[in-house]
Amino acid sequence: MSQRQLQNPPTVCVIPGDDAAPEVMRPTVEILQRLAPSINFVEAPCGREAQAQYGTPFPDVTREAIDNADCTLFGASGGPSRPILWYLRWNKETFINVRPVRWIPGYRSPMLNPERIDYVIARDNLEGMYPPREGDVAELATLTSSSSWWMAPPVDKVGAYSIKVSTDEQMQRVAAYACELALQRQQAGYPGRVTLGAKYSIQPRTDGRFRTLVKEAVSQHPSLTYQEFLVDDMARRLVASPETLDVVVLGNEHGDILADVSSGTIGGLGLSPSACYGEHYAYFEPVHGSAPDLAGKGIINPTAMLLSGAQMLAYLGYNEEARALETAIEQTYRDGSLLPVDQGGQAGTTEFVQAITARLPRN
Amino acid sequence: MSQRQLQNPPTVCVIPGDDAAPEVMRPTVEILQRLAPSINFVEAPCGREAQAQYGTPFPDVTREAIDNADCTLFGASGGPSRPILWYLRWNKETFINVRPVRWIPGYRSPMLNPERIDYVIARDNLEGMYPPREGDVAELATLTSSSSWWMAPPVDKVGAYSIKVSTDEQMQRVAAYACELALQRQQAGYPGRVTLGAKYSIQPRTDGRFRTLVKEAVSQHPSLTYQEFLVDDMARRLVASPETLDVVVLGNEHGDILADVSSGTIGGLGLSPSACYGEHYAYFEPVHGSAPDLAGKGIINPTAMLLSGAQMLAYLGYNEEARALETAIEQTYRDGSLLPVDQGGQAGTTEFVQAITARLPRN
Repeated sequence: MSQRQLQNPPTVCVIPGDDAAPEVMRPTVEILQRLAPSINFVEAPCGREAQAQYGTPFPDVTREAIDNADCTLFGASGGPSRPILWYLRWNKETFINVRPVRWIPGYRSPMLNPERIDYVIARDNLEGMYPPREGDVAELATLTSSSSWWMAPPVDKVGAYSIKVSTDEQMQRVAAYACELALQRQQAGYPGRVTLGAKYSIQPRTDGRFRTLVKEAVSQHPSLTYQEFLVDDMARRLVASPETLDVVVLGNEHGDILADVSSGTIGGLGLSPSACYGEHYAYFEPVHGSAPDLAGKGIINPTAMLLSGAQMLAYLGYNEEARALETAIEQTYRDGSLLPVDQGGQAGTTEFVQAITARLPRN
Repeated sequence: MSQRQLQNPPTVCVIPGDDAAPEVMRPTVEILQRLAPSINFVEAPCGREAQAQYGTPFPDVTREAIDNADCTLFGASGGPSRPILWYLRWNKETFINVRPVRWIPGYRSPMLNPERIDYVIARDNLEGMYPPREGDVAELATLTSSSSWWMAPPVDKVGAYSIKVSTDEQMQRVAAYACELALQRQQAGYPGRVTLGAKYSIQPRTDGRFRTLVKEAVSQHPSLTYQEFLVDDMARRLVASPETLDVVVLGNEHGDILADVSSGTIGGLGLSPSACYGEHYAYFEPVHGSAPDLAGKGIINPTAMLLSGAQMLAYLGYNEEARALETAIEQTYRDGSLLPVDQGGQAGTTEFVQAITARLPRN
């Protein structure tokens, strides 16, 4: 995948995040350090702690630590650390959000046949409805193309607009990345199928163009197959027929929504890792929030953070170590004698991490 | 609910729709006529048939039939009949789309515990991302507020925009309707809980304003309770904890997507009815498409169309007849000896409708 020249040994900036996030970040870094002792981990201050020490939740020292690292491991943001997340996303141009969705025996899924769930969502990370661009509807009267719209906007009413943006450049690299991902998975035995979900029927200029570009990108790889569904139907298929999915490509807000449906099908946000890749940078972040209600209780599920760490190990070239970590997590769930609270067990964060650590290969 | 003065007896305009849609419309009208012989059903031409006869898929005679009726029963559109749908929605200002989501024993759900599913989605039917308003990103430079946006749009790149619109007027009536619906359901034993799903964290002017207005509307009814979730989390909850939901309020595109997830959880689009209400008109339509792949095979599931018909009977004041139809459908599924093909059975459309008809009270 898109990867810049890495430092040797690689450096990882660690941003613990807000609320309960540091409780899963700290044991994760310990495990990663144990698996790959050569990696240089540098923790940087963030959020309330940084606010107290530096007068800002995102001090220069943190920006420098991010810039000097090969990638960042990011705990969830509960608000205070959000400017850091924006820096990682838009300033570092990490254009694609990759979310593996795979059920493992032991995950408490609400589905009848969760063993069918094993695919990856590749989501636009930079455009669409985010970042927000909003204003009064009255302003829309100045848009010159409005005469050709299917219906004029209600500029005489009290109301607001929000703008969705899609550039060819971004859609093309999202499409290209999805194909690379499908090819890589195909080598591991997956079908090599790229499935687009978008509202191309109603939004020809944005989602329709995305459809054209994804279709074109897939057609350049004879071993890959292409499928497309309107995003509403795509969302239904995550529940109804996940076994037909391999690599699912989605716009920013659509991906935001659908990936959470996917998390729901495997058993919750505590199990869902994610990686954001750019041409020159990457960051890794569990998709759950900072879980303020769990802060200090020692029961937050570390699985999403650990699996995000495994994605990071693979990005840095530590493929065997990544696989070892995933295997240890999988074995712990399959064993089932010790499960986190959100998966119906009674294990606290530390206890659960210890069970995983005990299954890691000894150096 | 919002209801205009009805004609006595009431008149219903019947638009059979495209592809396989007429195959479920015809038996549905037969059943409705049998239950409520006083209703005056007037079928109007549409789609390819109207094109052949009148040179347009939406002839004046159809518009007049719609205008002269108290409401319209609409079969699914597969493209040709779409202008009629737009007329019913935007010209008739049917501002809210109501989709009951309830599992019945016999529905082939992919969920482990589908008996937990029994709520209603109330969705903005007029604004947000639909109808489409798109253009070149370069045009966005003329918007005066763009200087205050969190990030300037990439006006120098090749790309397009799409605009989401939210007026106070529309958000207020959606909010008010959701409260009315919750109050009505509360009388039938439901908890009286209104749950908002929106992206208020990222879009304060549109979704944030929606949040404020829904919250305000609910606070005017002391017996109702209010809940809110970011729309991604809301989507996950449809899968993870549907038993916590009663009335779910959503924007137009969010509702479009999430309602299909809901359909997936109960067992498919063939089971999902919908009603669209305005202050002066209403139309009723199954949410499945026109299923061109099923056209002529006689196997399309009539349940969604029949349940939409039951919603219509209730709207016209035939509450007992509506309940009788719902009960006959429920009994047929519970019995399970005869099920439609999409629910794992072998019954064709006619056979399944006959099984339901046999369970209706005799006049």
